[in-house]
Amino acid sequence: MTTNRILTDYVYELIGALHSAGVVDVVISPGSRSTALAYAFASSKEFKIVRHVDERSAAFLALGIAKTKAAPVVLLCTSGTAAANYFPAIIEAYYARVPLIVLTADRPHELRGVGAPQAINQPNLYGHHVKMTVDLPIPDNDLHTLPYIARQMTRVTTMAMDNPRGPVHVNIPFREPLLIDFQEQLPPARMEVVFPADVAPSAATLAAFKTQIEATKKGFIVIGDLPQHVDLRYLWAFIRQLKWPVLVESLSHLRTNIPADCADFVIDHYDAILKNEQFKHRMAPQTVIRFGAQPVSKPLTLFLKAVRPEYFIVIDEDAIFRDPVGIVTMHIHAPVDKWLTSFTSANEIFDKDYCSKWLAANTIATTKITNYIASEEDEGAIAGLFFTMMPDGSDLIVSSSMPIRDVDTFFTKTTRNIHVYANRGTNGIDGVVSTAIGTQLASGRQSYLLIGDLAFLHDSNGLIASRYQAVDLTIIVMNNDGGGIFSYLAQASVEKHYETLFGTPTGLQFNHLAAMYDAQYDAVDSKEQFATVFSQPKVKPLRIIEVATNRQANVLAHRMLWQQINEELETIW
Amino acid sequence: MTTNRILTDYVYELIGALHSAGVVDVVISPGSRSTALAYAFASSKEFKIVRHVDERSAAFLALGIAKTKAAPVVLLCTSGTAAANYFPAIIEAYYARVPLIVLTADRPHELRGVGAPQAINQPNLYGHHVKMTVDLPIPDNDLHTLPYIARQMTRVTTMAMDNPRGPVHVNIPFREPLLIDFQEQLPPARMEVVFPADVAPSAATLAAFKTQIEATKKGFIVIGDLPQHVDLRYLWAFIRQLKWPVLVESLSHLRTNIPADCADFVIDHYDAILKNEQFKHRMAPQTVIRFGAQPVSKPLTLFLKAVRPEYFIVIDEDAIFRDPVGIVTMHIHAPVDKWLTSFTSANEIFDKDYCSKWLAANTIATTKITNYIASEEDEGAIAGLFFTMMPDGSDLIVSSSMPIRDVDTFFTKTTRNIHVYANRGTNGIDGVVSTAIGTQLASGRQSYLLIGDLAFLHDSNGLIASRYQAVDLTIIVMNNDGGGIFSYLAQASVEKHYETLFGTPTGLQFNHLAAMYDAQYDAVDSKEQFATVFSQPKVKPLRIIEVATNRQANVLAHRMLWQQINEELETIW
Repeated sequence: MTTNRILTDYVYELIGALHSAGVVDVVISPGSRSTALAYAFASSKEFKIVRHVDERSAAFLALGIAKTKAAPVVLLCTSGTAAANYFPAIIEAYYARVPLIVLTADRPHELRGVGAPQAINQPNLYGHHVKMTVDLPIPDNDLHTLPYIARQMTRVTTMAMDNPRGPVHVNIPFREPLLIDFQEQLPPARMEVVFPADVAPSAATLAAFKTQIEATKKGFIVIGDLPQHVDLRYLWAFIRQLKWPVLVESLSHLRTNIPADCADFVIDHYDAILKNEQFKHRMAPQTVIRFGAQPVSKPLTLFLKAVRPEYFIVIDEDAIFRDPVGIVTMHIHAPVDKWLTSFTSANEIFDKDYCSKWLAANTIATTKITNYIASEEDEGAIAGLFFTMMPDGSDLIVSSSMPIRDVDTFFTKTTRNIHVYANRGTNGIDGVVSTAIGTQLASGRQSYLLIGDLAFLHDSNGLIASRYQAVDLTIIVMNNDGGGIFSYLAQASVEKHYETLFGTPTGLQFNHLAAMYDAQYDAVDSKEQFATVFSQPKVKPLRIIEVATNRQANVLAHRMLWQQINEELETIW
Repeated sequence: MTTNRILTDYVYELIGALHSAGVVDVVISPGSRSTALAYAFASSKEFKIVRHVDERSAAFLALGIAKTKAAPVVLLCTSGTAAANYFPAIIEAYYARVPLIVLTADRPHELRGVGAPQAINQPNLYGHHVKMTVDLPIPDNDLHTLPYIARQMTRVTTMAMDNPRGPVHVNIPFREPLLIDFQEQLPPARMEVVFPADVAPSAATLAAFKTQIEATKKGFIVIGDLPQHVDLRYLWAFIRQLKWPVLVESLSHLRTNIPADCADFVIDHYDAILKNEQFKHRMAPQTVIRFGAQPVSKPLTLFLKAVRPEYFIVIDEDAIFRDPVGIVTMHIHAPVDKWLTSFTSANEIFDKDYCSKWLAANTIATTKITNYIASEEDEGAIAGLFFTMMPDGSDLIVSSSMPIRDVDTFFTKTTRNIHVYANRGTNGIDGVVSTAIGTQLASGRQSYLLIGDLAFLHDSNGLIASRYQAVDLTIIVMNNDGGGIFSYLAQASVEKHYETLFGTPTGLQFNHLAAMYDAQYDAVDSKEQFATVFSQPKVKPLRIIEVATNRQANVLAHRMLWQQINEELETIW
């Protein structure tokens, strides 16, 4: 077999520059046009290859790895609609700020737009949803080509990793023959990459920040979804200094692994507390400081929208700061990072009773929720039990829709070292199984996925990854036979067409899917059964525990819990 | 429940205009933001609703309906990545010229680009791969709004149906509350829609066409994939008049249902014949006329590329005519249609022996292929047997990759009324199951899908459709455990990494998937078994026949067949 020298040099230059810029993980889907790059990656020991035959799942798997490692991950596919299957995960990566480097092999120019097979219009394929897109030239032996390729690869990687991080797209045309000499070594780096220096707010900004904090009697901190590269020690130090209540979403990673001296500031059950009208009325904050994304909790969002705090300060590394209700008064355009240590505050007029009231309310909610978990039988109670049974040092990946809300309500703060992940860039229920597999491949930790039946079905192809690499995952499927979350919306009150358009029950159970993928499988329909089964050892790489629940019962039970907390909260005044 | 009057008028105006423009079929995926439109469609008896929970499959299902009916089909989904899951099918529809009307519900402007949940940048989401995109205004009671909405819906439908047909995108923002009064009737049409008038080439073009035909001694007609709206009688009349050999791809619908007086012109086994060097050398045509897309056959493409006919005339309704090898000498920019009847030709100097030689070669190939089907045991022989067993009045949907090539080689011309469909806009292996289901829903005919194991796995979620509506389909899965087509390419000779990157065996069988979807299931591994099983009655709506084949054996057997035909062809001189 003759190999193509020009092509060989081109692809090794390209992957060499990616390696120099810090890329290790490469997720490849099979195809013909991408042959040269696939061989080059696979034959270079510098890269770790993950394979998947469904490009939609492959992209979400790459997202899971990139998110968990906080490192750039390459995706590689052939020409045509293969590349279009990446689109959902790319959009999620764009809004969740995850560094994906998408390499799409393309046909050469003479086969574009002329009716050739498997040729689509790939340059700019992903539109507004990538940070940068490059259409590389066809491999040739011009002197400019290799240095240009190398430096463009450096640029795209730096761009993907620059704050806010995100996906980039490189389209690469190849002429036949597509075979390379894969005895080749990676070439030396042409330039050094120094990743973004620390960015800190100016002295003037810091002074304004300090002034607003020191003018505050009542205020709290909100911490939403934070990327993995944030060093949480800076946040804990800031919390220790301020001594304000801090409302932590599970995705902030501050609801777990809590330092002992910070536990009393951490408010985890704000979602339940903020359903109480009197509490909201009396506890209106003057100042709110938010790190990370706006949390999932709708009661929190409505509270902030109604209050419109005098100072609503958002620290966000993106110029397009996240402020869905339009109440931000100061945007500190910086990453959540070391600069927080340069901040010291007297913070003397702060009302200590305000903090105590939050804590008292949180204690009430915690007690009620704990009792609820112990005594009820619905989806939330089983999820709550599961959270308490998760071992130290494990990971929880949570689907959008109901599971993330069950975490919000039933995951109580803990000193256990547990990481919680979810796709909250766009809140899709697509690609969740694959994201979980990517997370587990990246962390190597004991991992659990909590997911509903429709989301599980949507990405059942995620399981194909287990046929190509060792996957170690326990999947807890809450099967309420359809779209449970819609039961909480206004349309649930309209009986006509409701099941057809929103409930959409499939009547499917997942025992057959488990058998197909050789997974350990148990079906349970009570909390007690769940506890028994969950305590049994995991004996296969993939484990599926299917929990039969009832959409209607879930809604009623949740409403009862909120009512109980609501009533008890009246006692704190 | 209070309903929103402005919203009610808006959505009924919108769907009313779609109805007036000829839309009947609507494929809906569940979601919240699209509530108003979903309710309006579902409560209007004018529409036929199909449901699917996986938007990627939903879009391919819509494509199957639109393609088969040659009619516009609406897709409806909620905001966020749901819309991105449509992308692969939209691109296929763009290149395959299928009229899809994609309605994406969006958040209102104040929730776009501000970090709100489930909000992505939806205007222009599909870039170059839709014919038209509109971002509608938020529902209001301005006098301009309803007439504008109605007329835009007329425009997008007309655009989707205008030649070349294709997908269009309408993005529609909705503010809460999202509930409408669905006792509403559709409003009367504001205007009449007259679909594109017949287009015919000018007299000068016709004269040039005639001159080139009458100057031809040796020539043939090539007919590739044709859309369903073409009336084939005009093509048969043209063939009768010219009496040239006509090379028909299965997707032209001219390899089946052949009129008795045309059978002798129809060359179906050109793919096998054109592997013979002497034949190619002696039979170089002076003129080639092509209707429809360039056929699948690589030998045909290579032949035409090497010959570069003096006249290569393409009739294509798209200004960007399909000519992947760059040999077209005349592009008649018109649909394949009635204007062909206005053409009469003396065509006196045409070499009748040229036609006889093609027919002789075709007869040789047919005999060898028939013998091969009778005596061999590989994938091709089983596929060939299956084609002969298909009943009159049934449909065949074929996956890209190996199955379409098996049809090309082993589907022999027939008078049976069989329609053959495949996604050849971009030749993807994605969405094939869903396309087949859409085709069957639209035709109501007995339908068979021929598909490989990777393509079947890729769109196994297509089967979810069977949980929401009555699907009647037999799926024949050729399971060669991986990417069989790559065995025919150069990379197959490189053992290192080959199975990892191209073979990609999953080791999966589909009995469990069949059980999950309550399908009738049989596994066979010989032709005899296949014949027995295929003759047994279909007793469930879904039927899966899994055929175990061997990638390596397939390649060797095919090569042997081509060698036999090649040798026998030497006898015709």
